[in-house]
Amino acid sequence: MGVLNRIGKQTILCKNKPVILGTGTAAGKKESEGPIGSYFDVIAEDNVFGEKTWEKAESEFARRAAGEAFKNSGIPSDNIDYLFGGDLLNQCTGTSYGIRDFGIPFIGLYGACSTMALGLSTAAVYIDGGYAGYCAAITSSHFCSAEKQFRFPLEYGGQRPPSSQWTVTGSACAVLGREGEGPTIDCVTNGRIVDMGITDANNMGAAMAPAAADTLIQHFKDTGRDPSYYDLIVSGDLGFIGKAALTDMAGEAGFDISDRYNDCGLIIFDREKQDTHAGGSGCACAGLTFCGYIYRQLREKKLRRVLFMATGALQSALSVQQGESMPGIAHALSISCE
Amino acid sequence: MGVLNRIGKQTILCKNKPVILGTGTAAGKKESEGPIGSYFDVIAEDNVFGEKTWEKAESEFARRAAGEAFKNSGIPSDNIDYLFGGDLLNQCTGTSYGIRDFGIPFIGLYGACSTMALGLSTAAVYIDGGYAGYCAAITSSHFCSAEKQFRFPLEYGGQRPPSSQWTVTGSACAVLGREGEGPTIDCVTNGRIVDMGITDANNMGAAMAPAAADTLIQHFKDTGRDPSYYDLIVSGDLGFIGKAALTDMAGEAGFDISDRYNDCGLIIFDREKQDTHAGGSGCACAGLTFCGYIYRQLREKKLRRVLFMATGALQSALSVQQGESMPGIAHALSISCE
Repeated sequence: MGVLNRIGKQTILCKNKPVILGTGTAAGKKESEGPIGSYFDVIAEDNVFGEKTWEKAESEFARRAAGEAFKNSGIPSDNIDYLFGGDLLNQCTGTSYGIRDFGIPFIGLYGACSTMALGLSTAAVYIDGGYAGYCAAITSSHFCSAEKQFRFPLEYGGQRPPSSQWTVTGSACAVLGREGEGPTIDCVTNGRIVDMGITDANNMGAAMAPAAADTLIQHFKDTGRDPSYYDLIVSGDLGFIGKAALTDMAGEAGFDISDRYNDCGLIIFDREKQDTHAGGSGCACAGLTFCGYIYRQLREKKLRRVLFMATGALQSALSVQQGESMPGIAHALSISCE
Repeated sequence: MGVLNRIGKQTILCKNKPVILGTGTAAGKKESEGPIGSYFDVIAEDNVFGEKTWEKAESEFARRAAGEAFKNSGIPSDNIDYLFGGDLLNQCTGTSYGIRDFGIPFIGLYGACSTMALGLSTAAVYIDGGYAGYCAAITSSHFCSAEKQFRFPLEYGGQRPPSSQWTVTGSACAVLGREGEGPTIDCVTNGRIVDMGITDANNMGAAMAPAAADTLIQHFKDTGRDPSYYDLIVSGDLGFIGKAALTDMAGEAGFDISDRYNDCGLIIFDREKQDTHAGGSGCACAGLTFCGYIYRQLREKKLRRVLFMATGALQSALSVQQGESMPGIAHALSISCE
């Protein structure tokens, strides 16, 4: 056995630099009206997207995003060795029903809102090791299906507290390959579960920020990099409150990220004009922002080095009802275009 | 880039033969009274296992199984680079809450009842490629939490049809490494989603058998092996009905598996004496049977070559209520001790 393709305690080196060949995005109407709305491939006119239920609509978003990714990357579904994906719905049905007709070997993931980063990181490892020629990573979320499942029926009309975030409606998919044009992944830091005892399901940013700090600080320690290495450090959906918390926690550990850090939940929506309180959230928040906007910035070399870190809160509606706190996790990957 | 570590259309070659160093199991009382009950490390006296809810009990099973696996393999949790796992509960909380205190980087999976095979296969790839020194794979299920979530409240006392299966209560965990004593994994065939339109949530075997046939036949085609290569071909939880269906489908494709094929759901319970109708099911069915019984048979060289293939049905209670059929998937791996 050769040496391990690892550095430090928790980081994988992708020596063969898997390439993100193309992405596909399908977004809801509200998302299309936000600051990065022009970057999405497909826009739904309403929140059922021609289907009878919100859950079926979420699958339709996934199906459409995957189709766009295959088209934009130039890699037909028949050539893709594995699809990695999951979502927030119970039993990840958004993804399974959305992609079932493609006939691609499927590795189902559960990482809650971290799924885009989790999928990209596992796909990168399979490509890097020569276990696949092409892989895809996909995720989805839907405001209505998520509110219904995790919080209150929409018809109830409950007032949302200022700390609440707005689940992004849509789906995003990326196709990775061993060679070709596009940004490359050079290393991956998968996170540990961190649970600080937060039990308020309307304050996800606070629940996930400690996990984000854990992964981010470990990434810097493992790689010997500091924040200045990256043009952009971007978290998935910490929102306004979580962003401030992560900035503080990283700063206390000696890593000042304040001048180059942003959160997808604050990029995808205009908080003031779009009334999203603490910002966007959900699997598609990091998914659409990365696959739509950030990916384009990398391809156009407006960004050269990005640390993409999506966070997830791993509770269920039931576990919160049973008094459990919300365990957080964060997965990070370094993506560059040089 | 070198050649791909693949053969055929869908199979990964693990050239470095990751070793399953040890396993740990925690099982319910009914499981301990079955034909392989003596193989489990920890037995719960009742179905709440000292906790207040069935869901918390499921997490306790996971915590205990992981602890046993770390002890039995001789690899402390601090040395494990990744834990791969998931379960049937909404948002996979059985696993996340069960393993959160170990502090191991966590790659959450969703494969329903296929999770033991999915976890072993992804862990094997990470080890084989040198992306990890040690990995663990874990899964869990619980009769009470599963019935409550997928079918009817237990208090309702609904009659179970003959095609229904009995969700296994417990958790199983395996620790894999690059070197050491134990059975090794030489190749992995991850499956595609196959949906034949079955909508009866009390007939899971029928829903999953076509996916099992798809993966099994592809495995034989990719590897050039035929059933005689293996001492035992074992599916996860097809039960009595699914077993017959898979045997027929494989036979029609020219692969007679009838003299060496069994299903974990028919191994873990005595169908007649234990009143489990079509047999056992759930993530822990394949998990406990593999990590408890089959693993021991391999270590003692009573079995030399095993094809372990666990199947999953990817529906949710809600998707079935919305009239959706149940997509199946199966993941297979070849494990030998020579």
